[in-house]
This record gives sequence, C-alpha cells and structure tokens, in this order.
Amino acid sequence: MASSAAAAANEANGAGALDRLLTATQPEMERVNALILMRANSHVEMVPELARYLIEAGGKRLRPMLTIAAAMLFGRANGAQINYAAAVEFMHNATLLHDDVVDESDLRRGRPAARMIWGNQASVLVGDFLLGQAFMMMVEAGDIEALGVLSKTAAIIAEGEVFQLAKARDLKTTPDDYDQVIRAKTATLFQAAAEVGAMAGGADAAGRAALRDYGRELGLAFQLVDDVLDYRGESGAMGKNAGDDLREGKMTLPVILALADSNPAESEIIVAALGQADANETALSQVVAIMNRHNTLGRTLDLAHRHVRLAREALAPLPASAMKTLLSDIVEFYVNRAY
Amino acid sequence: MASSAAAAANEANGAGALDRLLTATQPEMERVNALILMRANSHVEMVPELARYLIEAGGKRLRPMLTIAAAMLFGRANGAQINYAAAVEFMHNATLLHDDVVDESDLRRGRPAARMIWGNQASVLVGDFLLGQAFMMMVEAGDIEALGVLSKTAAIIAEGEVFQLAKARDLKTTPDDYDQVIRAKTATLFQAAAEVGAMAGGADAAGRAALRDYGRELGLAFQLVDDVLDYRGESGAMGKNAGDDLREGKMTLPVILALADSNPAESEIIVAALGQADANETALSQVVAIMNRHNTLGRTLDLAHRHVRLAREALAPLPASAMKTLLSDIVEFYVNRAY
Repeated sequence: MASSAAAAANEANGAGALDRLLTATQPEMERVNALILMRANSHVEMVPELARYLIEAGGKRLRPMLTIAAAMLFGRANGAQINYAAAVEFMHNATLLHDDVVDESDLRRGRPAARMIWGNQASVLVGDFLLGQAFMMMVEAGDIEALGVLSKTAAIIAEGEVFQLAKARDLKTTPDDYDQVIRAKTATLFQAAAEVGAMAGGADAAGRAALRDYGRELGLAFQLVDDVLDYRGESGAMGKNAGDDLREGKMTLPVILALADSNPAESEIIVAALGQADANETALSQVVAIMNRHNTLGRTLDLAHRHVRLAREALAPLPASAMKTLLSDIVEFYVNRAY
Repeated sequence: MASSAAAAANEANGAGALDRLLTATQPEMERVNALILMRANSHVEMVPELARYLIEAGGKRLRPMLTIAAAMLFGRANGAQINYAAAVEFMHNATLLHDDVVDESDLRRGRPAARMIWGNQASVLVGDFLLGQAFMMMVEAGDIEALGVLSKTAAIIAEGEVFQLAKARDLKTTPDDYDQVIRAKTATLFQAAAEVGAMAGGADAAGRAALRDYGRELGLAFQLVDDVLDYRGESGAMGKNAGDDLREGKMTLPVILALADSNPAESEIIVAALGQADANETALSQVVAIMNRHNTLGRTLDLAHRHVRLAREALAPLPASAMKTLLSDIVEFYVNRAY
C-alpha cells in the first residue's frame, strides 16, 4: 500500500514518467554510455582520468536520452542517434568543464569540480578534446545536415556564455537579456539534441520542427528551474553550492525581478551581495527573503510552467504513441524538481 | 645595387619566396580575410571585440595561406578552400586564446594577450565560439571527408596540449615525448591545412598524401624553430617574451637535451629556473649559456633542417609547377627565422 502510494506520488510529480523513459531508452543508452567511455579514451593519461571523473559522476544524461527518445519516437532509427547522443553529452561536458573555469566553481555534480583536482589548464584543454571528439563522432555518422545543427549549436552556446559574462553584475540587465542568455546557453543544446534525434529517427520536416520546438521549450523550463534552485536548493541535492549565481554576480531572472521591484533598502542589500565571492549564508538568506517578499522565485517558476506547456503543445500535432506520451509526461519532472 | 643585394639576401634566406607566395595567394587571401572578419561577428559585442583584437594583430596567416596555396597547386579549386582556410585560422586562434589562459601569458603577437584585457573567462569562451564557427564554415563547404580531417585535428591538438601540460617540469621527459607533443599540438594543424587545401584543389590520393606530409614536416620544423627562438629571440621580434617556455616549465627539446648532457652543477641551475614564473634575465642567460655549451639550440635547429628536407622531399613526386617551386622554397624561411 505504502509503495503504491509512493508510486502515485512519483507519478504525480513526473518522476514516474522519467523512470518509464529511462526503462524505454535503456538498451540504446547502454550503447551510448559504452561509446562515451570509449571516446573519452586517450593515450594521454590525464585525458581519460579527468573526462571519466566528470562523466562517471554521471548527471542524469538528460540530453543524450532526449536524442535517443526522439529517434525512437519516429521509429526508423538508422543508428546515427547513438553517435549524436554521445556527441551531445560530450558537448555538454565540454561546456561544464569550461564553465567551471569561467565561474571558478568548487563543486560539480556533488563532487569537487575537475579544476580543483587537475587545475584550470587541464579543464580547458580536456574540454577542447571532448569538443573535438564530439565533432568526430558526428562526422562518422555522416549526415552533413545534422552536423550543421550541432556545429551551429556549439557557436551559439559560447556566444550565450559570453553574453552572460558581459552582463554579470550589470544592474540594467532586463528579463529579455536573460531570455536571450538562457535560449543560447541552455535551450539550444536541448533543441539540437531533440532535433538530431528526430533526424536519425527518419522524421519528416514537420516532425523535426516539432522536436526542435519541444527540446527548446524543455531547455528553457529546465534552466528557469535551475536558476530558482540556486536560491532555494540545498548544495547536496543540487550537486553545486546554493547561492553560487549570487556570488558570481549572474543576472538570473529571480534577481532581475527582485531588483526591479525592490525598495532602495532592499536594492542595497542585493547589490551588496551580488558578485561577492565571499557572500555568506546571512547575506544569501536576506536576498532570498527579498525574493520571497516579491515572489520572484514563484514568478520564475510560473514562466517555467509556461514553457512546459509550450513543450507539450509542440508535440501535439504528432500521431499518438507511447513514446509521445512519455515525452509529454516527463516535462513535469523538470519543473517539479523545484518543489 | 644595394636593393638588388638586399633582394638576393632576402632570396637566400627564403623571405623572397615568402613574398612571392604572398603575392600569388593574395586575391584568395583577401576573400579569406573578409570571411574571417565576417564570421568573427556577433550581436554579443565582446565577441567581435576580442576576436578582432586577436585576429587583426594578424600574425602571418601561414596556415590559411598553406590551404590556399595547396588548392592552387592542383588547379581545380572548387571554392571550398576559402572556407577551409578561414576555419583553419579560427581553429588556430581558438588554440591561441586557450593557450594564453593555460600558460598565463602576458603577450601575444607583440600586444598584451586578450586575457589581460578581457580576462581569462572571455578568452576561454570566445575560443569556444571561434571553434564553433570554424566547424560551421567547414559544414557549409559540404565535404564530409574534409570535415573528418579537421575535426580529428581539433581533438589531436587538445590531446597534445594536455600531454605537454602533463610533462611540464617533468625532468624525465624524453626527446620522443617532445616529438609526440609537437606533432600533435603544431604539426597536425599544418598537415590538415595543407591536406584540406589539396582536397579543395581536386588532388588525387597521392597528391593529398604529398601535401599532408609536406604540411606535417613544415609544422615540425616551424615548432622546433619556435622553441629555439624562445631562448634566443627578443621579445619584440617574437611578439611574446623570451624565456617564457623556461618560466612555464615547458619541456622543449633545447632544455631536454641540456638536462641530458649537463653536469650536476649545470643541472641544478636549469632545474632551479624551470617553471619559476619569476625567473629573471640572469637565470635565463645562465641557462642559455649551458645550452650553448652543449650546442642544444644548434642541435634543435639541425633537427628542424631535417624536417625541412623531408617537407621538400614530400613534394618531389608532384609535377613541376611555379607553385610547387614556391612551396618548396618557403620552407627555408621558417628555419631562417632563427638566424
């Protein structure tokens, strides 16, 4: 009884759907994981040491799973989805390595960031290696159009990260600027992961567009929730430190909305903590109190819910199938992480 | 008279051949330069600011010129060489941006390194952007085989850089280790630049292999000379600081050979300076004196000459042409930089 109640609760918050998606994609994800480990190899010992440290910490492999699920959805997968999925995960991991250097982060996936063990230098270079390997795997799949999607993605992600960096501690940052940053740095890779999966699965132009839209909206919801969790989460559960965005001066939506609505005294508290690497728990909780007073975390989650709806609507034109239902159901999971 | 004597001297050291190659490739290089500036653009202001600062400092554009010259050599250029040449230069510039972060360099191409103005963070991210743009340009050229050559190159360069980093200050580094590093980090890009140029020029398998070998040997000679200049050059002429390799603890051939041949007192002097960021002019000149005593700079140049010969021999099987003579003649220039 208790376990069926737990299952029902699981189902209600989307975790049940995620479990079912994990099961459905498992055989192909095992091939993806084997390819990932193989291609992280190198005769230069430090490369696989560092790469495997990061890769084996795991993360949820959401992006490659999206590629595999998208290919399965269209049912005529040609095998390229394995390479694309591994390439997408390598691109993601390359970004994480470079991000941790850029953000001077100490923690990643609940463990010390690779740069704390091997140094910034190795993190930059192994990131470059993973990006090169990602492109090799895409080339081996042989579809120049999919290569175009993924290479454009690499450039847009970097552009978004530079924009975010340029806006750090910029009190004039608008919600539109923020939207532009998260579309580029996060949503583009989710979008590409779903789109190339659809391509490998034999989707027609409409199917490809549907998955592209689905991936993008899912990515936007994901990042919005992530930016809420940074103020609400606990370090253990997130795998990184709560308050990192505040300390790095990142202008995420919760802080942009808080600055817009706050009185002079509140603004002063936020500005004093923003970008202070040594901002302590008291400073963080004062900022969170201001956010709660103006409901900026709640409003950020409302926007995430809007993108969840758009993700589901993107799938609507596609014929009914078990995989379509799964993809539609798992979007809840991303938002429910925040509760 | 004086000017014809100067011209003859120029010719003897290879600079005349370089001038002739510059003239021969100029029309296509103007298209390459226009494409480079266009593709360094972005709505995120910091991207073109930083990219153009680096790109307009110029350097000699040796690698893209090699691509253009290789395409011209085979005479049936299909236009892809313009994209490949710009992509090769972007890959090179991305590597420079990341290298300067890794090496903590202050100077590049005679000006403060980009990281000194925009910071390490922007240098890492704009490097990533340039790499993404490089792949996009290759994709637009549409040849999956050439894409394979260049994507493999990106992975190998990064691997070589990690190996170099792992060997920093490692007194047991062998000449073979060094050979492995410079093949990966330098020669691979020269090789790829020449090979994809040949492909765009319509070369057959033998022609492609000849240019691949030519590019690789030229790249090896280039790096060997660079590593001599680091101990012999003047900061102004090199565009970077003399002695940087010593201060960074880079195990280049001049220092590997010096350690192998030195007596205990000499070894002690080298080891004391190696990897010391604040090693001064006195320490540097003591190390150079030891190198001169054991002729390690001369022996490194001898090896460079060997690769120059191999580069020329690689071209031998190709039919005679004005471009073949030029490519054969310019290799001298690279080595004569050191005198």
